[in-house]
Amino acid sequence: MTRSTKRSNNDMRPVVIIPSFVKNPDGSVLMQTGDTRVLCSAMLEEKVPPFQKGSGKGWITAEYSLLPSSTNTRTTRESSRGKVSGRTSEIQRLIGRSIRSVVDLEKLGERTIWIDCDVIQADGGTRTASITGSFVALALALKKYQEAGIIDEIPLRDYVAAVSVGIVDGEKLLDLDYIEDSGAEVDMNVVMTGRGEFVEIQGTAEGKTFSRQDLDELLALAQKGIEELIALQRNIIGE
Amino acid sequence: MTRSTKRSNNDMRPVVIIPSFVKNPDGSVLMQTGDTRVLCSAMLEEKVPPFQKGSGKGWITAEYSLLPSSTNTRTTRESSRGKVSGRTSEIQRLIGRSIRSVVDLEKLGERTIWIDCDVIQADGGTRTASITGSFVALALALKKYQEAGIIDEIPLRDYVAAVSVGIVDGEKLLDLDYIEDSGAEVDMNVVMTGRGEFVEIQGTAEGKTFSRQDLDELLALAQKGIEELIALQRNIIGE
Amino acid sequence: MTRSTKRSNNDMRPVVIIPSFVKNPDGSVLMQTGDTRVLCSAMLEEKVPPFQKGSGKGWITAEYSLLPSSTNTRTTRESSRGKVSGRTSEIQRLIGRSIRSVVDLEKLGERTIWIDCDVIQADGGTRTASITGSFVALALALKKYQEAGIIDEIPLRDYVAAVSVGIVDGEKLLDLDYIEDSGAEVDMNVVMTGRGEFVEIQGTAEGKTFSRQDLDELLALAQKGIEELIALQRNIIGE
Amino acid sequence: MTRSTKRSNNDMRPVVIIPSFVKNPDGSVLMQTGDTRVLCSAMLEEKVPPFQKGSGKGWITAEYSLLPSSTNTRTTRESSRGKVSGRTSEIQRLIGRSIRSVVDLEKLGERTIWIDCDVIQADGGTRTASITGSFVALALALKKYQEAGIIDEIPLRDYVAAVSVGIVDGEKLLDLDYIEDSGAEVDMNVVMTGRGEFVEIQGTAEGKTFSRQDLDELLALAQKGIEELIALQRNIIGE
Amino acid sequence: MTRSTKRSNNDMRPVVIIPSFVKNPDGSVLMQTGDTRVLCSAMLEEKVPPFQKGSGKGWITAEYSLLPSSTNTRTTRESSRGKVSGRTSEIQRLIGRSIRSVVDLEKLGERTIWIDCDVIQADGGTRTASITGSFVALALALKKYQEAGIIDEIPLRDYVAAVSVGIVDGEKLLDLDYIEDSGAEVDMNVVMTGRGEFVEIQGTAEGKTFSRQDLDELLALAQKGIEELIALQRNIIGE
Amino acid sequence: MTRSTKRSNNDMRPVVIIPSFVKNPDGSVLMQTGDTRVLCSAMLEEKVPPFQKGSGKGWITAEYSLLPSSTNTRTTRESSRGKVSGRTSEIQRLIGRSIRSVVDLEKLGERTIWIDCDVIQADGGTRTASITGSFVALALALKKYQEAGIIDEIPLRDYVAAVSVGIVDGEKLLDLDYIEDSGAEVDMNVVMTGRGEFVEIQGTAEGKTFSRQDLDELLALAQKGIEELIALQRNIIGE
Repeated sequence: MTRSTKRSNNDMRPVVIIPSFVKNPDGSVLMQTGDTRVLCSAMLEEKVPPFQKGSGKGWITAEYSLLPSSTNTRTTRESSRGKVSGRTSEIQRLIGRSIRSVVDLEKLGERTIWIDCDVIQADGGTRTASITGSFVALALALKKYQEAGIIDEIPLRDYVAAVSVGIVDGEKLLDLDYIEDSGAEVDMNVVMTGRGEFVEIQGTAEGKTFSRQDLDELLALAQKGIEELIALQRNIIGE
Repeated sequence: MTRSTKRSNNDMRPVVIIPSFVKNPDGSVLMQTGDTRVLCSAMLEEKVPPFQKGSGKGWITAEYSLLPSSTNTRTTRESSRGKVSGRTSEIQRLIGRSIRSVVDLEKLGERTIWIDCDVIQADGGTRTASITGSFVALALALKKYQEAGIIDEIPLRDYVAAVSVGIVDGEKLLDLDYIEDSGAEVDMNVVMTGRGEFVEIQGTAEGKTFSRQDLDELLALAQKGIEELIALQRNIIGE
Repeated sequence: MTRSTKRSNNDMRPVVIIPSFVKNPDGSVLMQTGDTRVLCSAMLEEKVPPFQKGSGKGWITAEYSLLPSSTNTRTTRESSRGKVSGRTSEIQRLIGRSIRSVVDLEKLGERTIWIDCDVIQADGGTRTASITGSFVALALALKKYQEAGIIDEIPLRDYVAAVSVGIVDGEKLLDLDYIEDSGAEVDMNVVMTGRGEFVEIQGTAEGKTFSRQDLDELLALAQKGIEELIALQRNIIGE
Repeated sequence: MTRSTKRSNNDMRPVVIIPSFVKNPDGSVLMQTGDTRVLCSAMLEEKVPPFQKGSGKGWITAEYSLLPSSTNTRTTRESSRGKVSGRTSEIQRLIGRSIRSVVDLEKLGERTIWIDCDVIQADGGTRTASITGSFVALALALKKYQEAGIIDEIPLRDYVAAVSVGIVDGEKLLDLDYIEDSGAEVDMNVVMTGRGEFVEIQGTAEGKTFSRQDLDELLALAQKGIEELIALQRNIIGE
Repeated sequence: MTRSTKRSNNDMRPVVIIPSFVKNPDGSVLMQTGDTRVLCSAMLEEKVPPFQKGSGKGWITAEYSLLPSSTNTRTTRESSRGKVSGRTSEIQRLIGRSIRSVVDLEKLGERTIWIDCDVIQADGGTRTASITGSFVALALALKKYQEAGIIDEIPLRDYVAAVSVGIVDGEKLLDLDYIEDSGAEVDMNVVMTGRGEFVEIQGTAEGKTFSRQDLDELLALAQKGIEELIALQRNIIGE
Repeated sequence: MTRSTKRSNNDMRPVVIIPSFVKNPDGSVLMQTGDTRVLCSAMLEEKVPPFQKGSGKGWITAEYSLLPSSTNTRTTRESSRGKVSGRTSEIQRLIGRSIRSVVDLEKLGERTIWIDCDVIQADGGTRTASITGSFVALALALKKYQEAGIIDEIPLRDYVAAVSVGIVDGEKLLDLDYIEDSGAEVDMNVVMTGRGEFVEIQGTAEGKTFSRQDLDELLALAQKGIEELIALQRNIIGE
């Protein structure tokens, strides 16, 4: 098997993170991983959801959407269907949890940061690109709030990034593109911090199942990719 | 009064049309007018809505959306609210009608072209930018269909573009940005063809009313702007 | 071409405005234009929408609906479909804006007047009949509020009425009925005040486009019709 | 206790049934009972719901709605709320069942008749007025279908009408108006045929309960009212 | 005709009421009538609906649902369809009204008791079983509130129970199972109190109609069944 | 730390699987794990979703719901809110994927099996109990289809069961109850087959993160629990 972009099994696709891609959000990036392009942004709202009221803690909410023209076959707008699909809802919850894992919500104070991930072009790995890009958008926004005196210190405990790994035709691959993902026997999304701790592991067998040894090899691949991503984040954000 | 971008009352903001901005749609452009940026795309579906079935004619449907991060204050997703707002629905209908006005639906055959206008950054005039950009995205898609042998000839009768004009503090202005639009006494969207015929005129007085002479002056301003836009379209599409 | 009701191109259909058609609203009329019959009413609510709170200003909200039995082919209820259609939403916004253009919202005070336009029989021109009738229903309601001491003076700056004009088989016609409207090449709704100023112009080419001269002739026709309508309004309301 | 319209406990309010009130439905009446006014209509659709397909039998579906301006305090549109309320749904099902009880669905053939009951003015008893009026609208429509050769014979087995009775301040009353209904201890809707058989009895105690003797007296009152209503139906429809 | 469970026409099916079937609600029972099994529960909420605010009175709200697997052919979830059906809404309103008829809402105080009736197995008579079971669940909950000092005295004025009766193949039957109910010519649900007063009578003719004598016989059957049910309730709750 | 039910960290709660708990589904079980009780059922529909049509393959769809009275604080019905929550949708997708992983969809043929998991009492681990119970319900249903000649052989490749593990106060625990789950730092759901292969791993850090060694220990705990569950499944289903 040859990978479509002529990379070896443990190679990421080329990753580009363009900061401040749009002017209105407090922080934004265009996150590109191969042909996957996601516009990630962070915006402040000076209130929290009901379950957090009076707690002194803030909140991070993430929303995710595929533009209709981002996919090969046009994706119907969820606004036209009148509801958010199960897949979208699952991805939104994953992004939110992943980002919150490295944020000190008490230091944020009683305010919500809205993370928006809008996929402009989809070629596999949109949820992991959303997590990696959103962290940068959030960090840029937090710097801005600190400069504006809204918060005293940046309430981040660590970096966080995500990557997909999987088994395709029996081979273990890092950073699956759409074609690879469509034919994967096992598909796993891994979210890790800068210190190499896990935040989320979501491994799914599609039709086949996987052994303990498969799992170990996949996690090693994921760790390699995430370390590369966090190095890129570090370049943009600094410490 | 000085306009925010130091232009005179009958100046357009700088316009840039970037063709083939994304790879999946049949035609796409990034349409920029000042700080307003809209991603316009055209995609084919080999069937028509029920009312057009068996007619031998095709259809053009347009959808429009503001990304949550496109505006100063975050715009709530219509998928979360579970329905498309009145404003969105009105804009979608306007774009669809405007584009259809120059398409020969019989020559298109019984197929639908979906036009998607996703506003990435909003600074006034998103609906007119959507019309102007969508026409180019459509023309690019039609060329592709002709090359692929799906259609015999390009079913376009003319160019079509749109611009907003208005009265702000008693002054008649071409191509209002967001600040100007927010304070406008009269707001008018004009859609015209390459031959200088009208497709749509939507003039609205907000609070004040306007006279016949006001109307005449506004239409002259609009014509000037649309001629400039069609010249740009011509550069990209050719004849 | 002979018009279906044997009138010449610049004739309105017979117009009848029956005041106080129902007893519960604060003001109501049955507005008849030929076979088009719309029940227009105005009712008070002692609060304003969120965006107007604390402004000291009131608001006018309009809702519009076709009874299922008002049309030749039964119209499905929007309550059964679970949402308001794009067409309805567009008409509701038009009625609201038109009526608000002649109301001094500050003098109204922080309260909402709900305008309801329910089409009992549809034969073309239901949106313009709704505007013309609603203005009378509103004026009757305002008189009642003044008598009841709720408001000090009638917060109206002018009369407002609306009419449709269009081009059918190349002929310019005033006040299109359903058959004429269905075959119209150009369809234009014009809203004007008693002083002859424009409030709204919505001109749409269906398939064909229209020239500047066409526009001028259509606006002249509209002005003639609106002057007749305002004369009728004046008879009922007084100055 | 004196009844608001100076009638005795076993008096109906004045009833007027105006046939062919609107032109588009196949049959229509304006049904008036005191100040309650309901527009009832019948329209044909040449198909049946899924559960009736291939059965050779037709169907009658009823929809009911209060116009926003029909009530003292404005009624919110169900289209705005995005769903039909429990009360509306209950009434629609009652009207449908009541009308179907006297229709031979086999003789109707595989087609649906849509009954629409739109309340223009509400003053108590709108659901029973809807049943009584709908039967006349249906009969007028069926005559028209017979004349047009769509059906061979009128598929009606009997007349059907409905009335409300109740206990207010301990007194048993026929045909409750809104004020009486609001204060009723027991509220009962009775639907009967021309032969004096029951179709529906829906008796509800609000706060208090009622005895067997109360029931007997209420049913006697209802029978008196229904006989009067059927006499009026007979005048319009004939045998 | 022989009844499916070998009982005579005026026999109930075996009734079993299992108190405290689940641990989380304040009161709960598993109500079984033949093969019909309904889980009824009562839970407290320390607020009332808007229409009851400031009245000093409490409220009882009932919800009803068929589990998808409770019926022979799987019942689609109403959450998937996005709305509650007319039938469900009608049943919920009936249960709520019936239970409220014996509760002193003033003594309950400004709080809501939520009654939930979830049908685990459906074999006819689910709405009447829901009423009978809910009353016991409510009584158990009220005892608990009294013991916890939330209320001073049990705010119940009487027992309440319900049963269905009907005419099948010309025979009058007590407590119809699903097969009987499906073929019933007349179907009647009766709700009565411990003192033998009526709370609700809902009689419906399906296709056929019914005479006054039919009604009398059906009510006698219902009374017999309800007396038996209330005896069972008394065993569990006490006085 | 002492676990609430006095078990050691690597103990499951008592598990009881009651087969054929209700009569209408093709297969059903009441699945109990400690105080968590889920009614799982399987029902056949002789068609497949659109994406599977003409493939010759069947489908398994799972739905999950919490009864309102299953939780300490009443859970609002999703039918009343008009939509399925993100959490529910995520769980439904997980159950469906897990069960499908051991089913040979080709041998099933073009038909759908609906799995319904209705939680009657919730005390942690409802999603894993749903998977374990659903597999038994499915196996019982498949036996019935085989006996009825609908399918030739049982299209199951292996057993499948699921359990939750987690880290609470630094201790690694098997089979978390609600209290433990609420305070968990890491929460992981593991789905495995009878041969000890993984189907799904979903590990989530709440606030804290977890190391590679933590992961290894959690997976070992999960494997122990799942082996015990599959032994119980085997007792009921046989080979």
